[in-house]
Amino acid sequence: MKEFNYYNPVKILFGSKQSQIAGILKADGHSKVLLVYGQSSIKKTGLYDEIAAALKSAGIEFIEHGGVSSNPVLSHARAGVKKAKDATAILAVGGGSVIDESKAIAAATASKYDVWELYEGKKPTDALDLYVILTVSATGSEMNSGSVLTNEETKEKLSFGSPLVYPKVSIINPSLTATLPKEYLVYSAVDIIAHVLEVYFTAEEHPKLLNRFCENIIKSVIKTTEDILKNQNDIDARGEFALCATWALNGLTSLGVGEYSFPNHMIEHSLSALYNVPHGAGLAVVLPAWLQWFYDNTKNPQVERFAKKIFSQKNAQNGIIAFKAWLEKVGAPISLKDLEIKSGDIDKIAENVDFVSHRWGLKEEYPYKSVKKILKLAK
Amino acid sequence: MKEFNYYNPVKILFGSKQSQIAGILKADGHSKVLLVYGQSSIKKTGLYDEIAAALKSAGIEFIEHGGVSSNPVLSHARAGVKKAKDATAILAVGGGSVIDESKAIAAATASKYDVWELYEGKKPTDALDLYVILTVSATGSEMNSGSVLTNEETKEKLSFGSPLVYPKVSIINPSLTATLPKEYLVYSAVDIIAHVLEVYFTAEEHPKLLNRFCENIIKSVIKTTEDILKNQNDIDARGEFALCATWALNGLTSLGVGEYSFPNHMIEHSLSALYNVPHGAGLAVVLPAWLQWFYDNTKNPQVERFAKKIFSQKNAQNGIIAFKAWLEKVGAPISLKDLEIKSGDIDKIAENVDFVSHRWGLKEEYPYKSVKKILKLAK
Repeated sequence: MKEFNYYNPVKILFGSKQSQIAGILKADGHSKVLLVYGQSSIKKTGLYDEIAAALKSAGIEFIEHGGVSSNPVLSHARAGVKKAKDATAILAVGGGSVIDESKAIAAATASKYDVWELYEGKKPTDALDLYVILTVSATGSEMNSGSVLTNEETKEKLSFGSPLVYPKVSIINPSLTATLPKEYLVYSAVDIIAHVLEVYFTAEEHPKLLNRFCENIIKSVIKTTEDILKNQNDIDARGEFALCATWALNGLTSLGVGEYSFPNHMIEHSLSALYNVPHGAGLAVVLPAWLQWFYDNTKNPQVERFAKKIFSQKNAQNGIIAFKAWLEKVGAPISLKDLEIKSGDIDKIAENVDFVSHRWGLKEEYPYKSVKKILKLAK
Repeated sequence: MKEFNYYNPVKILFGSKQSQIAGILKADGHSKVLLVYGQSSIKKTGLYDEIAAALKSAGIEFIEHGGVSSNPVLSHARAGVKKAKDATAILAVGGGSVIDESKAIAAATASKYDVWELYEGKKPTDALDLYVILTVSATGSEMNSGSVLTNEETKEKLSFGSPLVYPKVSIINPSLTATLPKEYLVYSAVDIIAHVLEVYFTAEEHPKLLNRFCENIIKSVIKTTEDILKNQNDIDARGEFALCATWALNGLTSLGVGEYSFPNHMIEHSLSALYNVPHGAGLAVVLPAWLQWFYDNTKNPQVERFAKKIFSQKNAQNGIIAFKAWLEKVGAPISLKDLEIKSGDIDKIAENVDFVSHRWGLKEEYPYKSVKKILKLAK
């Protein structure tokens, strides 16, 4: 086991009424907040009206910053910073994109930085308090200190992290996720599984306890995804799914494992940056291809363990096949073709990965050539 | 799944050098601390000298409060409060007893309460900052907000909890536990398993993910206990064991399970209060007896699951037998006789449980008669 530091001060209110956020903001001394949200869905579902009414009745003024896109972009975050000047807190109502952009606005506003400086590595010195009402369980951003944003001019999708942007409070109410279209549920499942697998496969060490934690999250995601696809109103399954999403990327799965990396995310971020595909859809295409490449090149025994524990397969190769078959079964795309990306674009994608990977501090085992090979396996 | 709130702001430095605590205290603005520790072991191992030297070289004054007993007592905690007057923080160097007494001193000093008022239910209004260097992995107190203390006059062992007494920082260095006598390692293992099993068996609901997390921790404790007993210097096993101890009672295992109770701890606390037996030793005696009683009375399917998942037994009864056999194998006491407690004392013990249980808000299913039955199974 490796040394580690663990710190996660986010307060999770799970299953709680979202309207209580107004009382929490008030008790924390906030009277003017930036209300960040995405497209029109929270207006359709009535969630917007509910939150707005609760804020008004608590005497909390709010400045609106709607329209966050599913791959949040720099220009929109910059616009948020302009609006946030007089606010002391941000209330993010949405999924990972809304939270990630909110983290950017929170840190850039209080640190008086341009937003992109954060993603270029400048450490924030302060951040507005961030509160979250989660409507999509997938990225885990509601309980971590990371954020991903796309610079639409340079076609870079980069990340930053700081303990300053941990949300103060995140309300996770699984019933709010019930209106999510089926394909987005599947993308979310893939994202959660990917978060776990990046650690599971790339970590320096694999303490048994951590291997088991990882496998159990994946098992629960597989089972609850199938349950929810059968019955959209299975709130118990939605609850366990939501728990998996949050705990998959809040630090639990990486305790004592040493260094690890996010090769699948890195490759996928180029797909999102270039083609604006949903993050989970891109991951579904990259994951099996990367895993095949990883196994062919390393024969890492974790792949055999994965095959055995998750898909009851006797060997690694059959495990990879079973994984891809499961993705296909639940309706995820499994090839670049499924994403309507031409195989002739592979060079261009690999170049973007190569360009961006320098910023991500990618390990040397992912040079241009390897990424091309992985993408070819995803044709 | 049930609603829940989760909040745990403790910063864990795992595997780190313990001497860095001086720099952390200084950075947090503390110049005078109460140094709380137990018996002579930290002087023998050199840990005391190491910490004292680090504090001195950082210019941090410390007031000594050694001599915490393995079941910490009220009079000693009160003495600590008298010494803590000018301190702004407490540095606890030891295991669960030292940390629990430190929490009492931290809250009573800053809230200006008598220590026992906390255990009688008066909510603290403030607490001194608490820092921990852990030398025994067992109780999980290094990453939770609870504390147990014995009133040696009234023979009551009670608990209190408050977010104010979460340690700010806990340094967990598994190599510090290597000097612990073998029997205390076993008692620690039983304590960790008991923390998990109380939730596992008594919770209102059992989301699959949580069932599996609980089973993962128990499996790891069983395996690493055996590994350490074979080789005292197996630092990898000690690391995983330590991780289990901390994560077994930091809130992870009870996410979404609803209400649960601590019947085994409650009964054991009477054994500790009356006979001053080590907590883990008492638990080893109570657990199989309670489990037998629980299964006989409820036929709760969790017992069969436990038998299957932990001991690969086909039915619940064989699982209980296997559990007891494992406890015996690793050298834990498994009867009151093993603790040198006469079976004629059962009435007296049950009376103490009954007396104290009113303060613990014990569920109605544990009246005097039931506790007597459980204790008879432990003869």
